[in-house]
Amino acid sequence: MSKAPPYSAAQVDVVRLPGRTETRDAVAVEEPLEIRINGEPVAVTMRTPGHDEELALGFCLTEGLGPRSAAPPADLAANTVEVVADRTPAARNFYTSSSCGVCGKGALEAVAVEAPGVESDLQVAAGFVSALPEQLRAAQAAFAATGGLHATGLFSADGGLLCAREDVGRHNAMDKVIGWAFAEGRLPLAQAILCVSGRLSFELVQKAAVAGCPVLAAVGAPSSLAVELADDRGVTLCGFVRDGRVNVYTEAWRITA
Amino acid sequence: MSKAPPYSAAQVDVVRLPGRTETRDAVAVEEPLEIRINGEPVAVTMRTPGHDEELALGFCLTEGLGPRSAAPPADLAANTVEVVADRTPAARNFYTSSSCGVCGKGALEAVAVEAPGVESDLQVAAGFVSALPEQLRAAQAAFAATGGLHATGLFSADGGLLCAREDVGRHNAMDKVIGWAFAEGRLPLAQAILCVSGRLSFELVQKAAVAGCPVLAAVGAPSSLAVELADDRGVTLCGFVRDGRVNVYTEAWRITA
Repeated sequence: MSKAPPYSAAQVDVVRLPGRTETRDAVAVEEPLEIRINGEPVAVTMRTPGHDEELALGFCLTEGLGPRSAAPPADLAANTVEVVADRTPAARNFYTSSSCGVCGKGALEAVAVEAPGVESDLQVAAGFVSALPEQLRAAQAAFAATGGLHATGLFSADGGLLCAREDVGRHNAMDKVIGWAFAEGRLPLAQAILCVSGRLSFELVQKAAVAGCPVLAAVGAPSSLAVELADDRGVTLCGFVRDGRVNVYTEAWRITA
Repeated sequence: MSKAPPYSAAQVDVVRLPGRTETRDAVAVEEPLEIRINGEPVAVTMRTPGHDEELALGFCLTEGLGPRSAAPPADLAANTVEVVADRTPAARNFYTSSSCGVCGKGALEAVAVEAPGVESDLQVAAGFVSALPEQLRAAQAAFAATGGLHATGLFSADGGLLCAREDVGRHNAMDKVIGWAFAEGRLPLAQAILCVSGRLSFELVQKAAVAGCPVLAAVGAPSSLAVELADDRGVTLCGFVRDGRVNVYTEAWRITA
């Protein structure tokens, strides 16, 4: 993965199906930022680098903390910003993410949940993957009414929809599906596929990996950290699944022609 | 606002422009859920009600806490779920939201940041509002490359783009813009308009209200709690701003024909 100006985008390898064209694709950069307030590390947010001081000021202001100034730390620690504010928050550890899911971690290094890589020999056809979003959308009763809900669907390897859940939070929709699978005694999801209606951030890949699911597909774009984590955990990451196309960012051997 | 099955959608009043048709619209329900683990309140997530036990199980599982079971509390407290798990998280207060921004609050009642209502006599034309998303998109260099970034734009009442920021997290893009305005000495934003590229959740309205901005427009749909908070704080909330249309959910007097 290479990052070049604008630093908000990074270049990653991608296999485009159908056709199996190997090329490069630009993805949005997602990296953790630790916000220190009055010397205390109080928040980690998953953000796109750039304008970090503005981000920290806006965060502290809208959290009612009375910010005065923000600057990179004197020791030049990467991905950290120091804020002087009227109040240090009472709860020392509050954490945010692009859509949460990393909350509660005590340091940048601890953002990732400890979990083994995904072990699965599952292979599925590209045509199978490209049909999933339509199946998921058909199950989204509340989206049809409101236009305002994310969805996650769990599919068996023969294409059956096992469980679909909707939520205003994409990580919640994923948690509901994984919680269902847990309660049903179906974990790890070594022979199943997860499909989400939106974009792929770090924490959605983390949740899929912890659940042992080998294939995660999305209608939208992945972030840089989603691709990195999928590569590390052995998850096949498919993005831009629409109009018969599938972009495979990692472990493309699982997607057959 | 009335809620009927499916509880994932609620009916709200809306004024549709152009034409100024007063009607009702279905919005996705967003409400806080407090997750208690082994008797300790440890997380508040902004979620769409339904399948709360699954949500809590999936959350605890993917956070590596070893859940065993989840159930509503014996005292039938609304919007609360109790989990029995192998581990209670070390950091007691970790909080999640549909895309964060409410992190760090100690109880359901404390989700909203204390802030006065927005005071502004600003009025803008519907045609002005409907042109904002295209102006914002034109400023989104990184989105064009990646398809994976949210954006927030701040506009003056005469239509000038004052500041545009992109991020994988929509709350981060908003924080960056408000942080810029703070550093520029422009707060409160009583004569300005905020426009976001995606959907409107509770926390985006909260941030706009704390910044004193009277008009918040979005390409996407609002949640129920976004509408409720905008109504409470006197913010004009515009959704589905696309193809020349504007849905105004609150304080419609600020949008003229």
